[in-house]
Amino acid sequence: MTVELICVGTELLLGNIVNTNAAYLAEKCAGLGLSCYFQSVVGDNEERLAQTIRTALDRSDIVILSGGLGPTEDDLTKETAAKVCGRTLEMHEPSRQALERYFTDRGLTLTDNNWKQAMIPQGAIVLDNHNGTAPGVILETEQAKVILLPGPPNELYPMFEESVVPYLEGLTSQVICSQTVKICGVGESRVETQIQDLIDAQTNPTMATYAKTGEVHIRVTAAAESRKAAMKLIKPLVKELKARFGNDIYSTEEETTLEKAVADLLQANDLTVTCAESCTGGMLSARLVNVPGVSQVYKAGLVTYSNKAKRKILNVKKSTLHKHGAVSPKTAEEMAKGAAVFAKADVAVAVTGIAGPGGGTEEKPVGLVYIACNVKGEITVKKYRFSGNRGKIRESAAAAALTLMRSCILEYFSKVTFGK
Amino acid sequence: MTVELICVGTELLLGNIVNTNAAYLAEKCAGLGLSCYFQSVVGDNEERLAQTIRTALDRSDIVILSGGLGPTEDDLTKETAAKVCGRTLEMHEPSRQALERYFTDRGLTLTDNNWKQAMIPQGAIVLDNHNGTAPGVILETEQAKVILLPGPPNELYPMFEESVVPYLEGLTSQVICSQTVKICGVGESRVETQIQDLIDAQTNPTMATYAKTGEVHIRVTAAAESRKAAMKLIKPLVKELKARFGNDIYSTEEETTLEKAVADLLQANDLTVTCAESCTGGMLSARLVNVPGVSQVYKAGLVTYSNKAKRKILNVKKSTLHKHGAVSPKTAEEMAKGAAVFAKADVAVAVTGIAGPGGGTEEKPVGLVYIACNVKGEITVKKYRFSGNRGKIRESAAAAALTLMRSCILEYFSKVTFGK
Repeated sequence: MTVELICVGTELLLGNIVNTNAAYLAEKCAGLGLSCYFQSVVGDNEERLAQTIRTALDRSDIVILSGGLGPTEDDLTKETAAKVCGRTLEMHEPSRQALERYFTDRGLTLTDNNWKQAMIPQGAIVLDNHNGTAPGVILETEQAKVILLPGPPNELYPMFEESVVPYLEGLTSQVICSQTVKICGVGESRVETQIQDLIDAQTNPTMATYAKTGEVHIRVTAAAESRKAAMKLIKPLVKELKARFGNDIYSTEEETTLEKAVADLLQANDLTVTCAESCTGGMLSARLVNVPGVSQVYKAGLVTYSNKAKRKILNVKKSTLHKHGAVSPKTAEEMAKGAAVFAKADVAVAVTGIAGPGGGTEEKPVGLVYIACNVKGEITVKKYRFSGNRGKIRESAAAAALTLMRSCILEYFSKVTFGK
Repeated sequence: MTVELICVGTELLLGNIVNTNAAYLAEKCAGLGLSCYFQSVVGDNEERLAQTIRTALDRSDIVILSGGLGPTEDDLTKETAAKVCGRTLEMHEPSRQALERYFTDRGLTLTDNNWKQAMIPQGAIVLDNHNGTAPGVILETEQAKVILLPGPPNELYPMFEESVVPYLEGLTSQVICSQTVKICGVGESRVETQIQDLIDAQTNPTMATYAKTGEVHIRVTAAAESRKAAMKLIKPLVKELKARFGNDIYSTEEETTLEKAVADLLQANDLTVTCAESCTGGMLSARLVNVPGVSQVYKAGLVTYSNKAKRKILNVKKSTLHKHGAVSPKTAEEMAKGAAVFAKADVAVAVTGIAGPGGGTEEKPVGLVYIACNVKGEITVKKYRFSGNRGKIRESAAAAALTLMRSCILEYFSKVTFGK
């Protein structure tokens, strides 16, 4: 069954607000096994709104509109939808009473324009609004089901959960499930190449790749008659991806971020960690601290932006800075060494690079970054060349530092294990 | 002139990500005086994408698409747009070379699927991508101008600013100019209340408010026959806003961020700065380091997440932590004192708070944050109560720290000046 979303509001067309309602509704609908092929945004204009609704009715089984149900003259979603569906509006007595109660309870005066919120299209299903004044409406026509919901998220979300989810569940027997395989340290096109055969052969489940900074996510989605059956379809494909990408996969859990995977790895191995950052300037620590409960492994970090700070706090040798420069493998190594001592941490990661826009030379261009990871005295230094603006280079460096940290810890312990 | 936005991506239809690109493009287009009546989201599906493009061509003068220009098989925006506009794709030699250079520079191997990014519709204008591999494309047809842009924001935004804005400006004889008044430390509804009379009376120029984390921007836009004439219309309104918001305005320059304003203020007063962060975990330093050339004022920063780090590095008293707790005005104060000593900085700002989701109590709920700012020994401590999830609370705290730093420095120097 297909669903189409129409969000109504001039503030969306002007870019005053980000359309989080669409993301919310889309995710909920995907979870209900509905296929969403189109989303639209249109303003409070009768003609254009009617045109958008008509197009949606022609191509989708369910049309969900949000916004434009309020009391003002601008609000004309209900009026327009009713007209397109050939229904007239009539006063809905329970809604009229609810409206009256809402205002009386709050000691407010009901202005005339408010009554129109109790006008409901003939034969429609009314959805109570426990968090505002405009009720929701479901209009069942021969072409499609049209669901009208309020725009404010604090009214929309509860109404969707309480009334729309049960209604939609009653319409379908199929369930859609998905699992995401999260890969770090491998570029999107290389990931794509490595799974081309699987993509070519896909029917159900299907696969899609999502590029993030320093990461690629592969989402595997299956449709079946039950959640269990869908997950059974997904399992062998995820297993195959695990075989192909091995240790480059840091998680297959929806809520696990790269920093969470690193924090978990540190905690599982009873390691504490510190960061010494130059060009990233705190971004790496900030990502680690985004993990709730990270205090178990992360105690302190340093931003050593100046050469003096590198020398005084991290004991980077003056001769190293002089001979090799602040952006060099040797400086990165000494930073990682000094940071472990300073913070008394088992693992220390150091980042030094040229984020630009100025400061680049032919020998050391903008985007050149060295990252060193020190795991209990074993130091690995890696050279990177990132592109983009200052912000992007720094974000890429922070992501690469997490990836390097992860691989160094894994390698350290694989050696320890094999050594025994 | 009308513009229509089409964002392409299955991840939008599935609600995996929020459509920030649409908000960005809508805001930019509004600033250029273009009327946006429709936005759509469609997946990586040729038939549906073609249908959406055709509808847009029929009703809008300019159609901007973002997403689906990458190297994978899923990416078919360019192919589909070319087909709808009756153009064939041909290898674009400069783009092919840029692609090759991009990979060679980074020591990466160019996989076969990458080449398709250098295929450009016949007769199209090519927009260089300095932050990625897929160039942008402008297709001029009899019906409309079709502009194809990459999906990743770090590629889309700079390409839009550098290439699309000048192109769009060239299409109209009327010049639309805007200036943004950037306010920090005042909530959106208070800003709106304070300018309601101006909004009610607006014709040309117009005003729109945009809420950001810890900031509100008021954009004043005017249309006129020349840039000079438009700026002349804008000037008195900006002057009025300056009179109403005074020191809460940190800039009226497009490219000045809050961290840039703070860094400029530090530099103008010949001050060095350091940060001691607990719950923000490096975010505050990371924002300051985002300012190119910040090394003039920022030398070193600390993330003191654990109590031990606060004690050992910042000399926060054991008794303070014991009696008042890590999240207290007294701890914040001692952190700001200790940080200035540690980094030998003129200004030290310290952040300590409960970012959640756990760790909150009735007395100290999630979202409670104390920020202390030490300007040459004069310490101000402020209490905040932020809402939202862990990430949002931390971002709000970092923004508030910048705002506090700014106001403390301004106050310090106003006192010094008046004292003389």
